[in-house]
Amino acid sequence: MSELPFSFHVTHTDGRARRGTMTTAHGAVETPAFMPVGTQGAVKAITHRDLEGLGAEIILGNTYHLYLRPGDDRIARLGGLHRFIGWSRPILTDSGGYQVFSLAARRRIGEDGAEFRSHLDGSLHLLTPEKAADIQANLGSDIAMVLDECVAHPCEAGPAAAAMNRTLRWAARARERMVAIRANAVDSVAVSNSGQAQFGIVQGSVYPELREESARGSVALGFEAYAIGGLSVGEPPDVMYDIVSRTTPFLPASRPRYLMGTGTPQDLVESVARGIDLFDCVLPTRNARTGQLFTSEGRINIKNARYTEDQRPPDPACSCYTCRTFSRAYLRHLFLAGEIGAASLNTLHNLNFYLDTMRRIRDAIAFRRFESFRLAFHQRLSRQATDS
Amino acid sequence: MSELPFSFHVTHTDGRARRGTMTTAHGAVETPAFMPVGTQGAVKAITHRDLEGLGAEIILGNTYHLYLRPGDDRIARLGGLHRFIGWSRPILTDSGGYQVFSLAARRRIGEDGAEFRSHLDGSLHLLTPEKAADIQANLGSDIAMVLDECVAHPCEAGPAAAAMNRTLRWAARARERMVAIRANAVDSVAVSNSGQAQFGIVQGSVYPELREESARGSVALGFEAYAIGGLSVGEPPDVMYDIVSRTTPFLPASRPRYLMGTGTPQDLVESVARGIDLFDCVLPTRNARTGQLFTSEGRINIKNARYTEDQRPPDPACSCYTCRTFSRAYLRHLFLAGEIGAASLNTLHNLNFYLDTMRRIRDAIAFRRFESFRLAFHQRLSRQATDS
Repeated sequence: MSELPFSFHVTHTDGRARRGTMTTAHGAVETPAFMPVGTQGAVKAITHRDLEGLGAEIILGNTYHLYLRPGDDRIARLGGLHRFIGWSRPILTDSGGYQVFSLAARRRIGEDGAEFRSHLDGSLHLLTPEKAADIQANLGSDIAMVLDECVAHPCEAGPAAAAMNRTLRWAARARERMVAIRANAVDSVAVSNSGQAQFGIVQGSVYPELREESARGSVALGFEAYAIGGLSVGEPPDVMYDIVSRTTPFLPASRPRYLMGTGTPQDLVESVARGIDLFDCVLPTRNARTGQLFTSEGRINIKNARYTEDQRPPDPACSCYTCRTFSRAYLRHLFLAGEIGAASLNTLHNLNFYLDTMRRIRDAIAFRRFESFRLAFHQRLSRQATDS
Repeated sequence: MSELPFSFHVTHTDGRARRGTMTTAHGAVETPAFMPVGTQGAVKAITHRDLEGLGAEIILGNTYHLYLRPGDDRIARLGGLHRFIGWSRPILTDSGGYQVFSLAARRRIGEDGAEFRSHLDGSLHLLTPEKAADIQANLGSDIAMVLDECVAHPCEAGPAAAAMNRTLRWAARARERMVAIRANAVDSVAVSNSGQAQFGIVQGSVYPELREESARGSVALGFEAYAIGGLSVGEPPDVMYDIVSRTTPFLPASRPRYLMGTGTPQDLVESVARGIDLFDCVLPTRNARTGQLFTSEGRINIKNARYTEDQRPPDPACSCYTCRTFSRAYLRHLFLAGEIGAASLNTLHNLNFYLDTMRRIRDAIAFRRFESFRLAFHQRLSRQATDS
């Protein structure tokens, strides 16, 4: 078996914050990085070329959605996910588990895996750790995630421990399957990306001792890198920050650390301060479509009547196409008129805000002034009240 | 009064087809030209910069929509339509009449004008020839259209003549109002574009003698240029071509001729052959949003199951971003998944097809090979059956 093209090099540290380069089969990603979410093979309301123009180096694809439609077997026949969607940079796919828990109908979790009915046509499916690995091998993403069991918040310690332990057992099965896939020993899979890395996932709800046990157990299985799952599920931000803080020390410093499904701009800064390197979240894209814009002075809701004749750009400190070209008054008009362009221009801005925040974070770490950046970032955001 | 910055120069002719340059207060437009329709201050599902990238030199705005929302008075306060929507190239606005006839509720046409209720909130409005001129002066478009009465198809000769004669009376009032606006004699109007031109409109349904009378009467009023209205309303293409053919001879060769609301790619070619210089139509943008793509070999419907694993671009002869980057299989997936990107990528392609057709028409005229271009264009389109 040839050596995996996956690697990670930390180039700068500042406190617990790290700057580095993650290399994948489809190229390098500067970290800390934010991954826009491309649920169904497209980041909603923005073209790939605009995404590239914003500097997005990696996107996320949702295994649950792509498995159900158009199907991972079909995508494999069409040359893999990169070729199918026309995106040549890195892609990370999740395991599908989170959507099974949040979207699918009549799901039933057992030791074997998660049985569920499709939210599209009601068809019955069984997602096992092996199946999640197979689907992602068919998709040919650069980073595949193991199937985990994510509990809701709040969750008692007992059920949280049970889910964490099942996640570890599933992780062992997923790793075994990945080894077999890499050895071309799984006939049902068409590998389009032989350089696919596999990340483990730490669970354990809000219990530091469970998180430590989960991290140690995951690391013992020897994944290419590790994620923290089961956060941003309704717990207060301080609790999330505390759990991140108490988990990252048990994850190897030589591997990227991925905080799944997080979060607000503040969450990104606070999590980088605690040693996180990778993020994904639907907030910038989903909120754009409902008219909420992230700005350097807080969130604004473009529907607000106060913007009816406001000729200022959404964020005067922003240099994106939307802010260079359009006023709040025009964006409000487009939103109220139901124009598709409202979603596109808002999405462009919000993603630029997130990606630019990551660039500024990386610069601050490189110049060893992350703490002053962090302070200024929070102060500026809190200076102005956020729109309702 | 300073001289109007509006001019038109024919640079090449080939049979009755003409190539020229129309100059407006916001720059030049190479003709024959197609104007993408920006109904509510935005061409649906495409950004201005992508439109500019496709080579669109002029867009159309709908007076009816902009008057109702966000309001022409508001747009005037915000510096005019160009500034409000962030588009610095030429804009033509229609008079609002067509939408009053097709969209508004409980409309009542009298000699004074058209009374109607807004399709948005039911509020009562009266659109007169003077009001249509005032609204467009507030908007500050580069080309304003007179209010006309457009009859449905079919229409008896009597009612067609009555509507044509009323259109002439309204045109005289519109011109008088425009003279007053240009002399700053209309207090209620905030002129943001002192270089606005005004086009008259020829009516007369499918009756050549009415068309001739309408053309002669319009020309006698002395507009900057003239449009043919009341076609593409359900009559067979051959009837439309015949009426165009019998109308253009009565319109001055020194002024651009605009065929309103037309049409298919074949209509563009056939109308250029009969002396038309300007077009607008919602077909490329509207059909894009329902999955219909115009290609060099006919229309295809991307929803069709035959494209499920079709790796070819929508139009192998096209060089647009969509065709360079994406397969029919992916575009079908995006459409079925309800992704906004389906509308965006389809719109980009369809508008490129229309704008590229106009470029090829202009080149063919310049090289005096328009007839052979026209023949090849139709032969290629008819070679392959169009998708249902």
